[in-house]
Amino acid sequence: MNKILEQALLYDFYGELLTTHQKEVYEQFILDDLSLSEIAESAGISRQGVHDLIRRCQRALEGYENKLHLVERFLSVKEKVGEIGEILDEWEREKKNPEEIVGRIRRISDTIIEEL
Amino acid sequence: MNKILEQALLYDFYGELLTTHQKEVYEQFILDDLSLSEIAESAGISRQGVHDLIRRCQRALEGYENKLHLVERFLSVKEKVGEIGEILDEWEREKKNPEEIVGRIRRISDTIIEEL
Repeated sequence: MNKILEQALLYDFYGELLTTHQKEVYEQFILDDLSLSEIAESAGISRQGVHDLIRRCQRALEGYENKLHLVERFLSVKEKVGEIGEILDEWEREKKNPEEIVGRIRRISDTIIEEL
Repeated sequence: MNKILEQALLYDFYGELLTTHQKEVYEQFILDDLSLSEIAESAGISRQGVHDLIRRCQRALEGYENKLHLVERFLSVKEKVGEIGEILDEWEREKKNPEEIVGRIRRISDTIIEEL
């Protein structure tokens, strides 16, 4: 996964644990894609100050994921639900062996339940 | 959901954000089902101290859920995967209308992906 997407995902999961000020600044970086200079100007702090704040936010969000692994758990579930979608696509194309299709979906849905 | 199960689920999701000492004491309460007096004795603190620590842990865990709603998101996904299981059960019993079965599973898996 690319770094920006990963950071946006971490922010989606754990962003509410940042302070209001951190969120305001970090969102301009991660969601609005502004440059450090642009954020510095709008937030009324130095470019270095923005840089440090963003690094602190990233480390905090990564720290939450290192402890909780919830993004990892969600991505695993998402991947498995995607596999169910692919099996359904296969059925739509071939319309063969519904029993086998059902068995494969059952195995995947069972592993999802075990993980949750 | 009963209160004990809810608290165990919150602990499963956010417990790693508690301190080591909080985790040691809180696990005796929530996972080992010990009484306040038993925990007080083993931890070498007063019964009131155990009571206060447990309340602080509960409030912290509830605070994380109020901000992040990740238990809520997980339970919603789990419920939907359960619905897929029921549709598969129906197929196993009746072996009718595989196309309709596939369509219903597709709709549920699409809503899961949207939520994740």
